[in-house]
Amino acid sequence: MKLFWTPASPFTRKVSVAAKEIGLWDKIEIIQTKWPLSWGYETVQFTAGLAENNPVARIPTLVTDAGHPLGCSTLACQHLDRLSGGRLSGPDPDRMWSLYAIADGLIEAQILMRAEHLRPSEYRMESFLQKQRDRITRCFDAIEARADELQTKKDGNLPNLAEITVGIAASYQDWREWLEDFRPGRPSLSNWYESFRMRPSMQTSEPAETPEA
Amino acid sequence: MKLFWTPASPFTRKVSVAAKEIGLWDKIEIIQTKWPLSWGYETVQFTAGLAENNPVARIPTLVTDAGHPLGCSTLACQHLDRLSGGRLSGPDPDRMWSLYAIADGLIEAQILMRAEHLRPSEYRMESFLQKQRDRITRCFDAIEARADELQTKKDGNLPNLAEITVGIAASYQDWREWLEDFRPGRPSLSNWYESFRMRPSMQTSEPAETPEA
Repeated sequence: MKLFWTPASPFTRKVSVAAKEIGLWDKIEIIQTKWPLSWGYETVQFTAGLAENNPVARIPTLVTDAGHPLGCSTLACQHLDRLSGGRLSGPDPDRMWSLYAIADGLIEAQILMRAEHLRPSEYRMESFLQKQRDRITRCFDAIEARADELQTKKDGNLPNLAEITVGIAASYQDWREWLEDFRPGRPSLSNWYESFRMRPSMQTSEPAETPEA
Repeated sequence: MKLFWTPASPFTRKVSVAAKEIGLWDKIEIIQTKWPLSWGYETVQFTAGLAENNPVARIPTLVTDAGHPLGCSTLACQHLDRLSGGRLSGPDPDRMWSLYAIADGLIEAQILMRAEHLRPSEYRMESFLQKQRDRITRCFDAIEARADELQTKKDGNLPNLAEITVGIAASYQDWREWLEDFRPGRPSLSNWYESFRMRPSMQTSEPAETPEA
């Protein structure tokens, strides 16, 4: 497998953490992608091979051993789940996916804010940023209300894809200075995250800025 | 099941067409959502029940019979696929999902253009629109190159989710006057689409504008 990757992308990190949890990370050729900061608002020069493999030209793109590009983090994680015999989706997939969808929609709001921040300032809309902040608040509140579904602790069982996605969303919220602390008013999520973030899969995939060229 | 819906949304139409193809459309309570045209750049008043069921507050949101909200069109289609015994994913899922991901990324570019067009004109970036046009061109070209995977004709077997998504992307391209004709230079896709668009599932889910209030 090949993974078009960068450590700054929380969508990409889902694939990295999933692969590490099931022991397949070392079987994947990691291709560091480079992105000029204008990626959010114009066509940029893509890292060699990215657009040729996946015309959507975004990351993550996981190319399977059979050569099929999966240019969507959900589909890439599901491929890894199939390879693991379903160990990442668990016994109640509908319930798991419904929590996953909330955390994934939260990450989408984070990335939309990132792209808006990268626009030239005269094209930036405060109301758009506020729309995403409102979405993030609603999603973290909903996750707190479902915190009994967050079971995996530091030394526990394999986490499912919902837990992985919640953990990455929380970590991204900590990383970017323009995002607020998710902890106030959410004690159950905060408590779970303190343990979850210590997993080796999380510790070895901490976010870092993407090379620009 | 309940589906928060509007006929203008191609992401939502994927769920509608999938449900119609497997004969479950009549089992779903359809909730028409309303969206002020400012939805693209500010928090708006949501249709009753939408944000309560799904904090991401977007469509489609499919609420399963067990009460789990699936607020992502891919996850909603996969739920329907499981209910159908896998009839919508077919014998080679990785290959199918890799084509699906291209068509889905194309639809995302269409919707990003729609949202950009809805911004007040002084906040609109031509380079952002061009980025999406470039993505759409690359994706349609890649689909044309893989047109041998588009098998389902008007009276043929059940289509898979990649075909449904390609058909909806092509239809949306025809619907919006600011999107170009996808046909020139793509004879195989064009020929397939002429037949596919006549399916009852497509004919009874034609796009129409969303009520604003």
